[in-house]
Amino acid sequence: MAAPQLADAAAASLIEFATEPSRYRHWKLAIDGVIATLTLDVQEDATLRPGYKLKLNSYDLGVDIELYDAVQRLRFEHPQVAAVIVQSGKDRVFCSGANINMLGLSSHDHKVNFCKFTNETRIGIEDSSENSRQAFVCAINGTAAGGGYELALACDEIILADDGSSSVSLPELPLLAVLPGTGGLTRLVDKRHVRHDHADYFCTISEGMRGKRAVDWRLVDQIVPRSKLEDAARARAQALAQKSDKPKDAKGIALSPLNRRIESDRIAYDYLTIELDRDNRAATFVIQGPKEAPVQDAAAIHAQGVKFWPLAIARELDDAILHLRANEGDIGTWVFRSIGNPDFVEAADRALLANANDWLVREISHYLKRTLKRVDVSSRSLIALVEQGSCFVGTLLELVMAADRSFMLNGAAEGSNLPAASIRLTEMNFGRLPIGNGLTRLQRRLFATPNKVEGMKAEIGRGIEAEEAEELGLVTFIPDDIDWEDEIRLAIEERASFSPDGLTGMEANLRFPGPETMETKIFARLSAWQNWIFQRPNAAGAEGALKLYGSGQKAKFDRRRV
Amino acid sequence: MAAPQLADAAAASLIEFATEPSRYRHWKLAIDGVIATLTLDVQEDATLRPGYKLKLNSYDLGVDIELYDAVQRLRFEHPQVAAVIVQSGKDRVFCSGANINMLGLSSHDHKVNFCKFTNETRIGIEDSSENSRQAFVCAINGTAAGGGYELALACDEIILADDGSSSVSLPELPLLAVLPGTGGLTRLVDKRHVRHDHADYFCTISEGMRGKRAVDWRLVDQIVPRSKLEDAARARAQALAQKSDKPKDAKGIALSPLNRRIESDRIAYDYLTIELDRDNRAATFVIQGPKEAPVQDAAAIHAQGVKFWPLAIARELDDAILHLRANEGDIGTWVFRSIGNPDFVEAADRALLANANDWLVREISHYLKRTLKRVDVSSRSLIALVEQGSCFVGTLLELVMAADRSFMLNGAAEGSNLPAASIRLTEMNFGRLPIGNGLTRLQRRLFATPNKVEGMKAEIGRGIEAEEAEELGLVTFIPDDIDWEDEIRLAIEERASFSPDGLTGMEANLRFPGPETMETKIFARLSAWQNWIFQRPNAAGAEGALKLYGSGQKAKFDRRRV
Repeated sequence: MAAPQLADAAAASLIEFATEPSRYRHWKLAIDGVIATLTLDVQEDATLRPGYKLKLNSYDLGVDIELYDAVQRLRFEHPQVAAVIVQSGKDRVFCSGANINMLGLSSHDHKVNFCKFTNETRIGIEDSSENSRQAFVCAINGTAAGGGYELALACDEIILADDGSSSVSLPELPLLAVLPGTGGLTRLVDKRHVRHDHADYFCTISEGMRGKRAVDWRLVDQIVPRSKLEDAARARAQALAQKSDKPKDAKGIALSPLNRRIESDRIAYDYLTIELDRDNRAATFVIQGPKEAPVQDAAAIHAQGVKFWPLAIARELDDAILHLRANEGDIGTWVFRSIGNPDFVEAADRALLANANDWLVREISHYLKRTLKRVDVSSRSLIALVEQGSCFVGTLLELVMAADRSFMLNGAAEGSNLPAASIRLTEMNFGRLPIGNGLTRLQRRLFATPNKVEGMKAEIGRGIEAEEAEELGLVTFIPDDIDWEDEIRLAIEERASFSPDGLTGMEANLRFPGPETMETKIFARLSAWQNWIFQRPNAAGAEGALKLYGSGQKAKFDRRRV
Repeated sequence: MAAPQLADAAAASLIEFATEPSRYRHWKLAIDGVIATLTLDVQEDATLRPGYKLKLNSYDLGVDIELYDAVQRLRFEHPQVAAVIVQSGKDRVFCSGANINMLGLSSHDHKVNFCKFTNETRIGIEDSSENSRQAFVCAINGTAAGGGYELALACDEIILADDGSSSVSLPELPLLAVLPGTGGLTRLVDKRHVRHDHADYFCTISEGMRGKRAVDWRLVDQIVPRSKLEDAARARAQALAQKSDKPKDAKGIALSPLNRRIESDRIAYDYLTIELDRDNRAATFVIQGPKEAPVQDAAAIHAQGVKFWPLAIARELDDAILHLRANEGDIGTWVFRSIGNPDFVEAADRALLANANDWLVREISHYLKRTLKRVDVSSRSLIALVEQGSCFVGTLLELVMAADRSFMLNGAAEGSNLPAASIRLTEMNFGRLPIGNGLTRLQRRLFATPNKVEGMKAEIGRGIEAEEAEELGLVTFIPDDIDWEDEIRLAIEERASFSPDGLTGMEANLRFPGPETMETKIFARLSAWQNWIFQRPNAAGAEGALKLYGSGQKAKFDRRRV
């Protein structure tokens, strides 16, 4: 695994999202035929930052980065796996959730970013179950508290040892004055359909629940004697595996390390380069299309593996997004540009569509979808620039439609003999890459005229230049060469002048018209309330519950209801 | 209008929600046949609290209390009105929104409560249009900025004067570093279907938009020359009125002042008494059922007017909720009890159902619905107690189902010869009183088994005692006489021990499983983000934009994206 090659000392404090099973310190991934086992056995001292210990199988972002890696590798490297058992390697504790001391020491933005990533990872587990048919069975021995139980809630089934002490709990409110914010509240009522009054009671008792009542109240699916926990989990995993359409003889592809160079103001991958303009607090993503015509049949795609352009660009974008979110908090605007042959990007989409039933191609499509969803929930302003020589086609066009604002050059730049800027729709824009709320980005753009969406299929495959793109509602502004530079510069400078918090709140509202799903409720209803609470003195103040936890002192609350 | 009769000096600082047109200082309500006109002409000095002036037709809570009163009276006192024109009484300004100096001076809880009430009032305007068929046409002369444009967004149609200066704008982000939080962001994309990138641009330009582009971008419905604004608004109002089913010859009923006595720890109305337990920060609502069998035919209901029990209890509950929210912020728990003859409550529901097509009865049902919705979005813990002698039937049973937790006495209290506690369903529980998300409270309770909801109709009209009520999922806990007092006491004491903020966030999540609507998105996605921003130094800190607005100093922002 290539380490970040950052010239200066900043490299040491960078949060690194790349890892691999041989380097895991907290999780163990074991494969046995169609069943995989993910065992959480946290090393107390192997923390991401100094100042706390990961006691009682609690986690920090470093632990969750390994979980994310494991879930990704299960999908790409172990396609035969049809069910995953999640369990603890400790004797009396399953997982006690996010480490409280870590939270107490963390800045607001680190806490919020940590929650976002853990939420994405748990939604990713559900995506794997739904779309990759890798079902997750959680076997709880000991206590599953807070984020520990929330991890269980992300699984398809929860089996709890019935030993008089194993329990599930969400003690955040009584102990810490915060919410079960990693999807806990939402999944209780929206996924497991726990009655709201039962959920209310459950969330106020720090000791949690166990035994028959935990089943009756739908908190877990099954209780079994401790001695039978392993067998029961295996039995359920096998039963779920049988319902999966996973090809038993499939051979995975290796997710080999990315080729990444981090310099002070530049991050470069094979197909993606990011330039940081620190004065304007902007990062410009330059996405390079395929360098040659992409292969078109499944066998060739398998042979290329991570070199297949759609997978390569998904991995690079994914890593870049996570890196910028965690390590470049001052960079508030992301600008998307692209360079390349539009025909090759279209051909890449064609390969994905023609081989949609191949397991690997299916994974690549879903990975592109998840990566684009990360863009939507990133607290960064998004600007897309469609220029001469760009290749915003199909899947890449989603970035233009994802943007809060897009600019497309109308006509040619002075002295350029490149063709005019154009964009192109492919079938990928019509359902395979939805936003978290279930709409496609095209449906979102045409929200005022939903009946026009189907008609847009007539435009598939055709180069659409600026005036027509504006007419069709696909881009925001179409300045000509004379205005182009000024307009872009002003847009980026203006963005940098606004309150970052105000922008985050505005973007989180405007990007999600229409329906809400469990996923979007977690990123809005739940996370926004949690972020508010994270700012309130009752939780985060010097005398707040989060700060005083474990000190023996009781938090002092301002009693006014807001 | 009876003034609050509070013994001590606190009365002077109470926020009073009761008013009537003759006492309005900011709005004028004029009726001309089927068209009403609501004219905003704010008196700068008539502020709710000292320290600011209501310049440029800006508003504070006092202005909005009049608007709420006017919308209510239009529904009950002027049933023949089928369309309402909203306009400004000033020459160059329609409305410049919530007063910034007032916001800068307000405590966090006042800001949040103010926003909640203004949101409820605007959702009430939409409810009036949808369910009372009183359409709203907004005629904008001059600037409609921020909350001013948000008021317009709550109307069915927006007509803007095309005079080179009249404009609509949402300048909250660029000027104040906060969100257009009175539904603005949500209504732009969800109601008016403004494209998200257009909305993004629009919300970043403080000068707003006017002329043809405002129409093209769906920000307004029509532009007309200034000289024709009044005629155009009237024409649209008449056109909309013709589509209404309002009875032209209907005679309204007078919303006469409530009979209310406020004492230091007690608030008493005719059918509702509230006892405040300040040690436990709890208010106990004791609701008295009808004192005699309610009248059953429409003519008699009209003759009773505000004395008809369902309307009387709706008005008293509504006033009490608003009073407690605004004036008793330390009271974090609301306990609901009832006393009365269950047959009479059932008969009241029967009267509502049998005369559902009568305009007044329709209004009363919708008012009960809106009042119950206020309960759902109140940041107070809700506990219901079903005892011997209680009358939680039909509409009142909604309070038990609304509660975060309900207790029902199992069996009789020692020495009591009253019948055992029982509850009763009526047809009112099956659709007429939905939560903001569109589900009935019964559907919410049976969210895990939706197919059981229809079957519950078999239980209508039957007294259901504790064990069966628990079995059916209608109550949370059924302690017997031995445990009753301790359990209730502990529940209330425990609630008072938790962080008020944590409770607010938890309740706002658990109460809304399932679908979201524009209404619930405003109270969650939008309000939760806004509340977060209201806590952030970039807006509310000493150097924040909200504090420095108008001072000539520029806000200093922490540039990190969260």
